[in-house]
Amino acid sequence: MSAASRFVRLVLGEYGERAELVDERPWERRPEFLAMNPAATLPVLVEGKGPPVVGGTVVAEYLDETRGAFQRERRLLAEQPNERAEIRRLTEWFLVKMDGEVTRYLVRERVFKLEMRTNEGGGSPDASAIRAARANLKNHMRYIGWLAESRNWLSGPKLSYADLAAASAVSILDYLGEVAWDEEPSAKEWYMRMKSRPSFRPFLAERVRGIPPVAHYAELDF
Amino acid sequence: MSAASRFVRLVLGEYGERAELVDERPWERRPEFLAMNPAATLPVLVEGKGPPVVGGTVVAEYLDETRGAFQRERRLLAEQPNERAEIRRLTEWFLVKMDGEVTRYLVRERVFKLEMRTNEGGGSPDASAIRAARANLKNHMRYIGWLAESRNWLSGPKLSYADLAAASAVSILDYLGEVAWDEEPSAKEWYMRMKSRPSFRPFLAERVRGIPPVAHYAELDF
Repeated sequence: MSAASRFVRLVLGEYGERAELVDERPWERRPEFLAMNPAATLPVLVEGKGPPVVGGTVVAEYLDETRGAFQRERRLLAEQPNERAEIRRLTEWFLVKMDGEVTRYLVRERVFKLEMRTNEGGGSPDASAIRAARANLKNHMRYIGWLAESRNWLSGPKLSYADLAAASAVSILDYLGEVAWDEEPSAKEWYMRMKSRPSFRPFLAERVRGIPPVAHYAELDF
Repeated sequence: MSAASRFVRLVLGEYGERAELVDERPWERRPEFLAMNPAATLPVLVEGKGPPVVGGTVVAEYLDETRGAFQRERRLLAEQPNERAEIRRLTEWFLVKMDGEVTRYLVRERVFKLEMRTNEGGGSPDASAIRAARANLKNHMRYIGWLAESRNWLSGPKLSYADLAAASAVSILDYLGEVAWDEEPSAKEWYMRMKSRPSFRPFLAERVRGIPPVAHYAELDF
């Protein structure tokens, strides 16, 4: 249920890399985890004996330098600096802005609070936070729809980090039944393409304990 | 008074580039500005007839690709992927985390609210936001002190984006007299080094209308 973690999993999947996943509840603030990342945020990538690589966009740059640069046509970041800047702008939009306005709130209020103890911030959901996040979500889905209409993929002619970042957030919100697909047909068409990629398949099989997904969640044609 | 804008100015200064500065008040949401950056955030870099490059970290990557890569010893991002990841982690720490926990609040409450109309969010400062930001600042200054003690520069042996990002935030907070320098001698020693760099000089001469800086603001040895 972390958009930035899903994003990194999609990148690894697109590059044909297998990673061992470790479940971490950042709010527990495990000392071993804080030693890896004092910001206590997800994701963190550890490769071999190398130092931890911390944060969705930082991991993405690391994977571009160590994997993407050798992928030619399948590279998820463009070659040209201005195109790279547009991909990065959108990646940050979905992983930082949309996360801070929508995803993080809905996940916190609807999922994490059920697992948190009172002293960790657990308790009953905050209805006004949910309302605000839902209102913001409409704007973000409209933006995705607009991008999908004006371009082939969200950042331009090719699949890029921007698509994977947006799809990560949307997959979480779709699981929770928060997306009004009827209102955004172009966004829906784009998301159907994303859903059918092999890198996406693991998400469709995963379930959050105690919270079943919306009925169409795993359907490729919904 | 935007840490990310100051950061980009420092990068440009270190690379010997001159940029024309345009004053933008994001809360006015000028249509021409929103067309360049729908997120309505600063900074935005426009080069020649190229598309706008949006956001502090995105501009930094763009400047590394178009300037830094040709700077050899003076490059502000390392060559090796793990070292680049550590520089990026810290740059994000200061431009995103510290900004969201400290800088943005203090600037908003103490500076921008004076210039904003009521319908833009203007009004009297929120004392509880100021209190929370000041408490968070202590932790961030302690972290800068710890980094400065354990390394030569904040991210390692060489001056990097991490130092420029931290110094940008600190320079704003110092202007406002928010930094308790006596408590963090190592951070102070590091900041004195930053302050004495030619790229830093323009900040020391600038003044915010109606808000004079703390007495020692422009002194290199304070």
